[in-house]
This record gives sequence, C-alpha cells and structure tokens, in this order.
Amino acid sequence: MTRNQLIEQIKRKKSFLCVGLDPDLKKLPKHLLKEPDAIFEFNKRLIDATAPYAVAYKPNIAFYEALGPRGWNSLQRTLAYIPKDCFTIADAKRGDIGNTSSLYAQAFFDKNSSGMSFDSITVAPYMGRDSVMPFLEFKDKWVILLALTSNEGSADFQTHLLNPQLSRNDDDELGLANSQIVVENQNEYVFERVLRVSQEWGGADRLMYVVGATKAPMLKQVRKIAPDHFLLIPGVGAQGGSMEEVCKYGMNKDCGLLVNAARSIIYASSGTDFEQKAAEEAQRMQQEMEAQLKAFGII
Amino acid sequence: MTRNQLIEQIKRKKSFLCVGLDPDLKKLPKHLLKEPDAIFEFNKRLIDATAPYAVAYKPNIAFYEALGPRGWNSLQRTLAYIPKDCFTIADAKRGDIGNTSSLYAQAFFDKNSSGMSFDSITVAPYMGRDSVMPFLEFKDKWVILLALTSNEGSADFQTHLLNPQLSRNDDDELGLANSQIVVENQNEYVFERVLRVSQEWGGADRLMYVVGATKAPMLKQVRKIAPDHFLLIPGVGAQGGSMEEVCKYGMNKDCGLLVNAARSIIYASSGTDFEQKAAEEAQRMQQEMEAQLKAFGII
Repeated sequence: MTRNQLIEQIKRKKSFLCVGLDPDLKKLPKHLLKEPDAIFEFNKRLIDATAPYAVAYKPNIAFYEALGPRGWNSLQRTLAYIPKDCFTIADAKRGDIGNTSSLYAQAFFDKNSSGMSFDSITVAPYMGRDSVMPFLEFKDKWVILLALTSNEGSADFQTHLLNPQLSRNDDDELGLANSQIVVENQNEYVFERVLRVSQEWGGADRLMYVVGATKAPMLKQVRKIAPDHFLLIPGVGAQGGSMEEVCKYGMNKDCGLLVNAARSIIYASSGTDFEQKAAEEAQRMQQEMEAQLKAFGII
Repeated sequence: MTRNQLIEQIKRKKSFLCVGLDPDLKKLPKHLLKEPDAIFEFNKRLIDATAPYAVAYKPNIAFYEALGPRGWNSLQRTLAYIPKDCFTIADAKRGDIGNTSSLYAQAFFDKNSSGMSFDSITVAPYMGRDSVMPFLEFKDKWVILLALTSNEGSADFQTHLLNPQLSRNDDDELGLANSQIVVENQNEYVFERVLRVSQEWGGADRLMYVVGATKAPMLKQVRKIAPDHFLLIPGVGAQGGSMEEVCKYGMNKDCGLLVNAARSIIYASSGTDFEQKAAEEAQRMQQEMEAQLKAFGII
C-alpha cells in the first residue's frame, strides 16, 4: 500500500485506528477454545467486527511465536483474512546485520518464501543503517522504526542526551573518530538522533516511526524533526495514553497517525459477546478520530 | 546451563567455539535439496561434524523464519538434535514491552508453549529494562544483550557519546528529568551505558553481551565496565575480525568468551565434502582457541 492509498483509506473510513491482533490463549473467550484454530477464529471474528472502523491491523508477532509452528500457521491465516484495503503491520521489532535483516524482510514481505506478505514491519534501530536498509529494498513495503517507545524502559537509553563531541580524546587511537559518518554538533536525545539520521535512509513514503502515546507531549518535538512521516502510536487504551493529546501534538495535514489499540478492543469482553463489545469500542474510537479529523480540516 | 557448567565445557573441550547454524537454502549443498527437510539435514550433519570442537550452537532465527512454519519445524528438530552439553543460543535479537517480551521468552524458553527451549536468547536493548527483565524471569536461562555490534551501522548510535547533563533545559516541563532513574555524571558512549546500566538488571551468571570481533580494540573498554561477563563475539571469519585480538583484549580468568563462526565453517565447502570441510575449519579454530586458553593459564 502506498502513502496516498493509506491517506485515502483514512479519509474514506474517517478513522486512523489500527487494531492490535494480540491473541493470548490465556485470555481468549473460553467458548472459542474448542475451535481447531482458536487463535485464528478469535482474530477472524474480531476482524469482521472491527473492519468498518479500522484502517490497519497489527499482529504482534510474539503472541504467535510463543506457540511455535502452529502459531505461525494461525498468523498466516489471519493475514490472509484481513481485507486488502487495510494496512498490515508485522509488529516484530526485528533487526540484525545486513544479510540477516534481508531474511527477516523475506519472512514478512515475501509470500513465496514464508507464505506471508505484510505491508510493513516494525524494526529496532540499535544496529543502525545497514540493519534497516534491507527492509527498504522491498518495493512498496514500509519500515516502522522504533523511536520513542511507550514503556518505562524508554528512559534507560532513548531519552538520554547525546554529546556534540565526536569521541573521547583517548579513543582516537581506536579509530572511532573515523568511523563516524556525520559530524555531530547538536544537543539531541538518542531518540531524536534516530529520527533525524534515519531520514537519510528512506523518505516519508517508506518510513514511519513508533512513538508511544504515553509520550504525547514529546510528539511536539518529534514533529519538529519529522513533520511529514506517519507515526504509529501504541499505548492509547490499556497503557493509559490520551487520544486528544496525541492528536493535538502529532497530527499533520495528512493525518500522519496510526493509533493502535489492542487489549481495550480485543478483550473488551471475554464472553460470547466479545465481538459486539470489540465493535462498540472500535466504533467509539473511530468516532473520536472522526471528530479529530474534522477539527483538523482533513475531512 | 549454569555459568560454571559452561566454563566446565570450555575447559573440557579446550574450546570456546560457537557454531552459527545459519542455513540459507540458496547456499545449501545441492545434493541435500532432495531431502524432505534439507535445512535440518544440513544442520544435523554439521552438528555431527563439529560437536567435538564446539561448546555452543547459535541458530540465527531469521534463517528459519524466512521459510514460514516449516522453517520453525526445522529449527525445533535442530535444537532437539544439539547435544545436551552444548550451550544453545537463539540469535533472535528480540525485545518489546514487558508483557510482550514475556511471550518472546516463552517462545524460546518454554518447551510446553512453543516446542523449544534454548539456554539463551539475544536481546536488543533499545527499549530498556522492562523489555529485558521478562527474559530473566526464566530460571537458568540467559540474556545476551546487544552492546557493540560488528556491522557498520554500529556507528550510527552505539558509538555516540552521551552528555552528562540530564535533559535539555527547555524539556523540564515535559517531565523528562523525573523519568530518569539514575543521575548521570559520566561521559560514556551509548554502548557503554548499555553495558553499565544493564548490570543492575542481572549478574554475570545470567547476562552476556554481544561485542563484534570487528571491534576488538574496544573490548579493552568493555572489560573495564564488564570484567566478568561472558561475551558473545560474532564476526571472526566471514566478517574479518581477528581471533588473536579478541583474546588479547577480551579474555578473562574464566575465558569469558564465546566466539561465533558461521559461514566460514558451514559453507567451507558446498559440495559432498561439506561436513569434512566444516569439521576441519572447526578443528582449526578449536586448536587456535586451545593455544589461547593455555597462554592465558585457563587450561
């Protein structure tokens, strides 16, 4: 799916909702457990219930991986069931050296190889450029790079300030100064450097960023560095982020947001009415989003 | 496997070789392709050929994932075939918010869940403490945290200097200063901070670090911060790192190293003599390691 097609869907459905398909066997409605593929059955019914309100679906791969090969089978079936006009995100947070990242890209982008082809994949930035580029080799596929995540641990490294100085004086002999590609002269946080440097790797038509809803005020700063890029925003809902703040600080003229909700929708009920409750919560969020899109003059 | 058991194996086999089981269908010896499970057959024969010389095996999960569910089946079979006295590493470079990292841990540590149980898993540090802790909840399992990786992209973020200042002055209103758990007052690289801060999460009996062989001189600095921890060292072989430099800067009184070689061993030949050539290369490396272990008085 191209950027224009995604924007088109957002305007058509009056929504920028992404539903997180994170099926936990321990939390599935009990009446589904007798199904041959309870995981797929759960997802299928949720997709049916929420498709009118969602422009994207985001299975978190850990939930499927935890079940071994059968989990991957359920994931394949789920992906095949998602309507073609919905943007699909493999929330895998992958990343490795170049030739290995190519294989991760194959796993999630090449149907002939793995049986699956998502529109996009979340990628961890720690290993830098050559760990990310292989994903961008795939035409019309997106990389969603972790920037500022929603969890407490984001404070361990992401929100630390970098030093404009290139290297410590005693390290010159180790050749570090030469290994820097860009001369640094700014006071920026680690996550800001990720936002800034990664723009040399791909444009706003191929690259998105993960910014946690719990970090909504930081969106102002994010937008200074990346005004046009789409942002994937987890953490509205179970993690406590505010939709209003997210829109206030994060929306741009193309909307530029995909707000993810998983637990608040998929576990809205764990009874036989789980689909209905999921639909209601998805619709509630879509209506909130519609109001925001109108307020910002996008629809 | 406990730390003492690992050290025991290193002394017994006079080796700290880790063989990377990275089977690429495009590179497999052609005569194997007719096998029902060519990937497992390749691995099985390599394990048979190299087990006398290796203390650890490290399948890089991307190679299996690229093939979808059948890749995971091959991985399961491979893991089951590795001798019980060898240390197993799921080179997955996983990491996500807490509840999701728990599921990744389940995928690689809980046989009842996924059908597989490795001794350890590589983890990406970007999302911080609460993304790593769930892996450490599993008794007798290890986390191998990325610190300074072997690839060029390590220069994008890992070798950047952090600023002792807590936050920019204009960010106080965003509450960032309060979200820092530890007051920083040192001039350290991002990867050094990863090494230092992570020691609060787990000790040298549960935590290891990835340091690329291509960064051997930096091992001196790594050892200042983490003198006792085992280090997983990829990049000797195909990536060009030097075994001698790695040992010179990285060995400690317990050896403290697992040096990984993949392509130089598993693709030493792509003919019908691939096992023999793999055995020869593994033995060559083991002999080099034996000499180093003796030189350092460990055996």
